[in-house]
Amino acid sequence: MAPRYDTVSFLSDYGLVAEFVGVVGSVTRRGAPAAAVIDITHQVPRHDVRAGGLALVRAVQYLAPGVVLAVVDPGVGTDRRAVAVEGGDGEAGFVGPDNGLLASAVSMVGGATRAVELTNPDYQLPAPGPTFAGRDVFAPAAAHLCNGVALTELGAEVDPFSLRPGLLPVPRVEGDRLLTEVLWVDHFGNAQLNIGPDELEDLDERITLRFHDQVRGAHRRVAYADIKAGEVGLVVDSYGLVSL
Amino acid sequence: MAPRYDTVSFLSDYGLVAEFVGVVGSVTRRGAPAAAVIDITHQVPRHDVRAGGLALVRAVQYLAPGVVLAVVDPGVGTDRRAVAVEGGDGEAGFVGPDNGLLASAVSMVGGATRAVELTNPDYQLPAPGPTFAGRDVFAPAAAHLCNGVALTELGAEVDPFSLRPGLLPVPRVEGDRLLTEVLWVDHFGNAQLNIGPDELEDLDERITLRFHDQVRGAHRRVAYADIKAGEVGLVVDSYGLVSL
Amino acid sequence: MAPRYDTVSFLSDYGLVAEFVGVVGSVTRRGAPAAAVIDITHQVPRHDVRAGGLALVRAVQYLAPGVVLAVVDPGVGTDRRAVAVEGGDGEAGFVGPDNGLLASAVSMVGGATRAVELTNPDYQLPAPGPTFAGRDVFAPAAAHLCNGVALTELGAEVDPFSLRPGLLPVPRVEGDRLLTEVLWVDHFGNAQLNIGPDELEDLDERITLRFHDQVRGAHRRVAYADIKAGEVGLVVDSYGLVSL
Repeated sequence: MAPRYDTVSFLSDYGLVAEFVGVVGSVTRRGAPAAAVIDITHQVPRHDVRAGGLALVRAVQYLAPGVVLAVVDPGVGTDRRAVAVEGGDGEAGFVGPDNGLLASAVSMVGGATRAVELTNPDYQLPAPGPTFAGRDVFAPAAAHLCNGVALTELGAEVDPFSLRPGLLPVPRVEGDRLLTEVLWVDHFGNAQLNIGPDELEDLDERITLRFHDQVRGAHRRVAYADIKAGEVGLVVDSYGLVSL
Repeated sequence: MAPRYDTVSFLSDYGLVAEFVGVVGSVTRRGAPAAAVIDITHQVPRHDVRAGGLALVRAVQYLAPGVVLAVVDPGVGTDRRAVAVEGGDGEAGFVGPDNGLLASAVSMVGGATRAVELTNPDYQLPAPGPTFAGRDVFAPAAAHLCNGVALTELGAEVDPFSLRPGLLPVPRVEGDRLLTEVLWVDHFGNAQLNIGPDELEDLDERITLRFHDQVRGAHRRVAYADIKAGEVGLVVDSYGLVSL
Repeated sequence: MAPRYDTVSFLSDYGLVAEFVGVVGSVTRRGAPAAAVIDITHQVPRHDVRAGGLALVRAVQYLAPGVVLAVVDPGVGTDRRAVAVEGGDGEAGFVGPDNGLLASAVSMVGGATRAVELTNPDYQLPAPGPTFAGRDVFAPAAAHLCNGVALTELGAEVDPFSLRPGLLPVPRVEGDRLLTEVLWVDHFGNAQLNIGPDELEDLDERITLRFHDQVRGAHRRVAYADIKAGEVGLVVDSYGLVSL
């Protein structure tokens, strides 16, 4: 069997305190010694499927070809499906819970071509208990995909259209107001909005921000460094979206 | 000399703020360019040998074959021994301080077959000062083991029975009470106890928990998702132990 | 083109919460699949160029041969230069902003032999916005250097003497006082001073520390373990500098 992928890009809400990330990485390496595990982030807010999906979307076009292993899984132990999805004409595999986490990233690479539910116990670890799907189900699936195991070996095929969609908010125009939502506040304090440069261009250079009852002026700027001290500026950020 | 191992699984209490983890990983890579370093966790509570040992035990059966490099070392700079231990019929090497940190993980893979004290300066880095054993003693030893250097080259053999044991608490029955101890509280708030499914089965479905003066009811459950809001449930966790 | 380096040692102030580190690592892997990325630390205090430079200096002599990718970049989006520097007779490449971050580490390996400004868009990613130089400029440069692309392909040569120097404080003698500065407080609470063992030897065994208006006695000690409970001790640390 010829190896198919040599990289597993791994995102989760496991945090970095306990050994979860290390154990899942180890299971992946044990199963696919020729593949490298690249950690995307493991500090997605706990059980926040939308935040995890947004981080994946921001990252996916930059990832090395291979398998995306993503685990933000509040429904672990319930009947939510564990899935593997082939997207982007087979260039990428996605492994994780079917709860919307993967959906937007899969769309970004061209949509799902095939999907399976991870039901084949031959490609899983025997679990001493029911709760660590990352270690016992998802990491082995990622490793087997790297090794060239066919997607359909991992379990029963499911209709890609039956996969749960991601929930990305869209902006809305109401009279002379544009209703937008903060998608993400980064490490540097920038607040990314769900609007792009086109929508920004339709705005005046001076903008009035309303947040609940608060009103504040802001300016369109080109670079972060153009924003004056104490001023709120709107810039196109490094993802092509508008940040405050 | 033929390479023997291609993975170093690395656990410590170094934290991720300073560059300690990166430097130890770099020394390992420099010494054994063909080996990969897999980080298990570096946020073991500072100097907490027992917590580090428990994390290793939870992880060890999932690690890729190779060397386990573990450093939680409150006695650095004193006369505690630095050791390398061969366990599991030679499939695994363990490198770290001889303070009980490694003991339970070594037992899990079948016990120590041989051990040496890391006394040979030829296999260490010259240290500008006395305190960074991870960088100057342990990482070079792990790299040399990967490269196929014989264990006994690294220093003087010591009796495996002289290695310090790990201190794992055992549960105790007192009348109609089972005295148990919390081993670990994970990222999701689950408290792992030092009892297994057998001991849980002997209990009623409704359980009375006592913690010092506090008394609280609890239920045996199968999955985390079966626990009702506001309820305390006991389940068998993903390590085969009982969690609250 | 023959690969030139197989390791990228990566340091930043990105933190580990968002996916920045993972994305930059992915771009590096995508560009140079044969190279490994070793994370030095990503928790340099935000925008603290001096702290990042000091962490690099402490680490640099231990790094695997290859490219050092360092990003602490408060001037991103301004006219600060993005540079690649060849140091240490070509054994090491350094990629990052020209703001003093790299300077002391470059000195440690023997100084800069050549440097370029990263101006060639052919070796960069098309950026949807102006602010993520790590992803769009620095990581591709590091990957191309690994792959054997000549330094001078990446942009216009600049005089190595024009690179911004690092700002490392030096100690000063004033009468019978030695004025020193805390360079770094590590994870274990040790405060590293900018004095070496020679300066320590000139001091008495009992030392009077003054910090603003506070006065406190301290002792010269050999090992951390020699310091008595409640006592302040000065020892030569694992970098050959004096720590409190």
